[in-house]
Amino acid sequence: MAHVQRMSTTLLKTLRDDPADAETASHKLLVRAGYVRRSSAGVWTWLPLGKKVLDNVCRVVREEMDAIGGQEVLLPALLPKEPYETSGRWEEYGDLLFRLRDRKGADYLLGPTHEEIFTLTVKDQCTSYKDLPVILYQIQTKYRDEARPRSGVLRGREFQMKDSYSFDTTDEGLAEAYRLHREAYMRIFERLGLEYRAVSAVSGAMGGSASEEFLAPAAAGEDTFVDCPRCDYAANTEAVTTVVAPADPLAHGPLEELDTPDTPTIETLAAQLGVPASATLKNLLVKVDGKITAVGVPGDREVDLGKLGEHLAPAVVELVTAEDFADRPGLVRGYVGPQGLDLPYIADPRVAPGTAWITGANKPDTHARNVVCGRDFEVGRYLDVVVVEPGDPCPRCGAGLEIGRAIEIGHIFQLGRKYADAFGLDVLGPQGKPVRVTMGSYGIGVSRAVAALAEQTHDGAGLCWPREVAPADVHVVAAGKAQQTELALELAGRLGEAGVRVLVDDRAGVSPGVKFTDAELIGVPTILVVGRGAADGVVELKDRRTGEREELPVQEAVARLAAAVR
Amino acid sequence: MAHVQRMSTTLLKTLRDDPADAETASHKLLVRAGYVRRSSAGVWTWLPLGKKVLDNVCRVVREEMDAIGGQEVLLPALLPKEPYETSGRWEEYGDLLFRLRDRKGADYLLGPTHEEIFTLTVKDQCTSYKDLPVILYQIQTKYRDEARPRSGVLRGREFQMKDSYSFDTTDEGLAEAYRLHREAYMRIFERLGLEYRAVSAVSGAMGGSASEEFLAPAAAGEDTFVDCPRCDYAANTEAVTTVVAPADPLAHGPLEELDTPDTPTIETLAAQLGVPASATLKNLLVKVDGKITAVGVPGDREVDLGKLGEHLAPAVVELVTAEDFADRPGLVRGYVGPQGLDLPYIADPRVAPGTAWITGANKPDTHARNVVCGRDFEVGRYLDVVVVEPGDPCPRCGAGLEIGRAIEIGHIFQLGRKYADAFGLDVLGPQGKPVRVTMGSYGIGVSRAVAALAEQTHDGAGLCWPREVAPADVHVVAAGKAQQTELALELAGRLGEAGVRVLVDDRAGVSPGVKFTDAELIGVPTILVVGRGAADGVVELKDRRTGEREELPVQEAVARLAAAVR
Repeated sequence: MAHVQRMSTTLLKTLRDDPADAETASHKLLVRAGYVRRSSAGVWTWLPLGKKVLDNVCRVVREEMDAIGGQEVLLPALLPKEPYETSGRWEEYGDLLFRLRDRKGADYLLGPTHEEIFTLTVKDQCTSYKDLPVILYQIQTKYRDEARPRSGVLRGREFQMKDSYSFDTTDEGLAEAYRLHREAYMRIFERLGLEYRAVSAVSGAMGGSASEEFLAPAAAGEDTFVDCPRCDYAANTEAVTTVVAPADPLAHGPLEELDTPDTPTIETLAAQLGVPASATLKNLLVKVDGKITAVGVPGDREVDLGKLGEHLAPAVVELVTAEDFADRPGLVRGYVGPQGLDLPYIADPRVAPGTAWITGANKPDTHARNVVCGRDFEVGRYLDVVVVEPGDPCPRCGAGLEIGRAIEIGHIFQLGRKYADAFGLDVLGPQGKPVRVTMGSYGIGVSRAVAALAEQTHDGAGLCWPREVAPADVHVVAAGKAQQTELALELAGRLGEAGVRVLVDDRAGVSPGVKFTDAELIGVPTILVVGRGAADGVVELKDRRTGEREELPVQEAVARLAAAVR
Repeated sequence: MAHVQRMSTTLLKTLRDDPADAETASHKLLVRAGYVRRSSAGVWTWLPLGKKVLDNVCRVVREEMDAIGGQEVLLPALLPKEPYETSGRWEEYGDLLFRLRDRKGADYLLGPTHEEIFTLTVKDQCTSYKDLPVILYQIQTKYRDEARPRSGVLRGREFQMKDSYSFDTTDEGLAEAYRLHREAYMRIFERLGLEYRAVSAVSGAMGGSASEEFLAPAAAGEDTFVDCPRCDYAANTEAVTTVVAPADPLAHGPLEELDTPDTPTIETLAAQLGVPASATLKNLLVKVDGKITAVGVPGDREVDLGKLGEHLAPAVVELVTAEDFADRPGLVRGYVGPQGLDLPYIADPRVAPGTAWITGANKPDTHARNVVCGRDFEVGRYLDVVVVEPGDPCPRCGAGLEIGRAIEIGHIFQLGRKYADAFGLDVLGPQGKPVRVTMGSYGIGVSRAVAALAEQTHDGAGLCWPREVAPADVHVVAAGKAQQTELALELAGRLGEAGVRVLVDDRAGVSPGVKFTDAELIGVPTILVVGRGAADGVVELKDRRTGEREELPVQEAVARLAAAVR
């Protein structure tokens, strides 16, 4: 029962200076406070305090996964090539996959995620519809050879992940497993003390509930998301849909050509004509599986090539080259317009029927005005392809959206039958006929969650852990000579016996100032100072987050803290 | 508090047949009972029941490591080449090491053990003698590319290990850390219910206490060890020392040559002369760092080349080739004797001063008798190099030794300053001068311990777990129709509330016979049968190990089992 850790014997060296290569708060503070240590690029050692925080996160994840009937297993990280060839991911992952050979020359990989092996496991173990549904999970080490590992444990190449997989015979079963995970994830992040948003990960095309990301808003995040300040809409920027009211095509004058020398860009054109860029129509040429296609968006917006690629997948999207123009003399670079253009035409919903535009006239140094959608040109396909910007209307309530940065801490995904098809995963149904299994895949970045918590909760003085994940409940600081240290250790012992997890700073030859600074840096939620007053039985409690201080008798301190952690 | 696992919803398929490639009991039974599943050669998935057993082993290891002041950390498995080049192990490990490159072409390895990285971690975190001693440990995934992965999880290529490392400034400190580990290991293996022997791992030359192995006697083991049936002596076969009483050189007749045609082997010689092989002296020629050396052992004994190599390390020992004989016409193959031989001569202690032998006369088809050690030839160096055989005298009490097979489950080792020297690990001493740190390294094969337990405790019907590691305390079998299943689930619920871990066989459409067979196979220590008598409130308790059965009222069963697990 003695949950007492003495700093004098703990492997823990705090640093005053930030590591040279650290950019984010979590990277700086987790290193400076002695929680993690870099082993190589994107590969980290968890030191004693860090291991405790990681374990606390794992415990919460485990409890909530068990509560939804998840069964814990442990799959290997060293995986054979064949199943990943079957699924196509051996190639698809590209350089992100760590590949290696064994002494016999057989190909292996270090698992980035385990859909293939879980599918094979269930194929092996389940033969009847009676064996399903099943939810399997593991907390395990994953590997991804990131091009730019950065931000400490926020984006590592070796990291800890909880991945789970659901197996059902019906779509309703999958929806239920997805719902169970969604709720478990919300409980997990709430218990951890993470501020989070559950956002649609892909646009409506794939079904709104098929995939959601859990994002922890943080300046250091690599993901961007939109957030509505009025309603509860939130989405991955790539999943934002645009709603535009149709205009009246009769309201515009006739198409008119304009002599616009030296205006190959929107900026030069808008300046010459004295119109806002938003009045112009920009036509980007791309190749979709080799076929040249025009993409029209308002001149003040950028095309998000990633989004375009996702919409058109599995087709490959490339930008056109100078050679492509050379082959098509009808295409005038910088002066392309959709009217009379013999190309497939994709447009942003803002290029709505009835809207009129200034755009290229398909002649050098010439543009056209009053080019009306539905009158002068037709849109072959509308797709949400522009980069979302702050102030874009909320698709739910119309208010101006805000754009924030966030860390992806979880992802839930209705995979459907993709992997079951690839591996022939059937079970015997109630009528004795084979039924193809449908799957979900669900992940939480466990080590990343530690970094996300550090990002969200730190302050200028250091880390500031929520109690559920903190490496201790109370940091007892012996602020003075040997006598205080003795009292501090005695008090720590009593707290430990009362079930309070204690870190006690009993270091000799370290000044009270250094001890206080270290306590703020380490970020245990309650700091208990055993100082001058201790001789009279008075200690000081300090709330790490609020900074509130309170003097109180030793006896009360033990009872109060024991009650607080229960 | 509901520790109830229902078999109807557990990922668990028992098999009646042994896997085709399985040779050992643990391999067969862990697969058949649904604890593990093969992913690739020597790489295993831990299924739900297996994960529970593995977790139980880890929990015991963790508790005992914490009890000796060990601090838990987590190091990566993906390690950079450089530290292993510094230590020399990048090359030394040979094919046993999984090596890989990242996307930038940098060399990495999958850690087989972590001395290098722990040394660097402590170098980073500890600067003063006040920061020591420290014991760090992790329970982590290790990788070794075994040439012949076999026996299921007994000898895997990816496996779980507890490795710890002690850091001290003095030899006494290291000895104390070693003692703490030794005692912790004994407690761990006792708690796990493993029968074990702590044996010297190397012969006296390196210091008897510098390294000990913990062996779990089991027929499937890959290690051999000697065990004295009279005293408590036990040792790795390679560490057995030979004690021989000196003989009197004057008691023998003069050296005499014998015409012995066609007797190039001990067998043909002994048969022709009608003497026991033990009366002859066998002289094996080897090259030690290229220099031809003779090794003399009694004709009835075999030279253990591994032992010889260890004694002479770092010199390289090879067998001589036909070319070596061609170069040295004085060496007559099959008729070599030590008398008048111009070579270094190493001998087994049994070739004691004063003993007389029949040996080669260094002439074709000729041997000599009455070749007396100390009169006709001299031994340059005595080494224990013969393969130990059953009945060899115990070096402590002289009784005939027994030889057993065992599984190495732990190893404790006083490394000394080898790694501290390689990495320059110093701390400032009390006098302000740098002090070189001394280290110990200590391992427990956590996943292997599960296999060792299965080997030692199984019987003809299946697995038979000690309670501390069992996946449940009680296996409740609903032996009959729906009514019994209902009663069984109710009882399981009450047991769960009382803190008993329950596995309940509530499967519909499975016969009582199959359920009983599965219960024996799965090996939970207590089986509780809810059968016909259940309607009258009577259930049957069966002890899995002893097979003892007892009928008793339901009420008593709950109380009895709750008391048993406390």
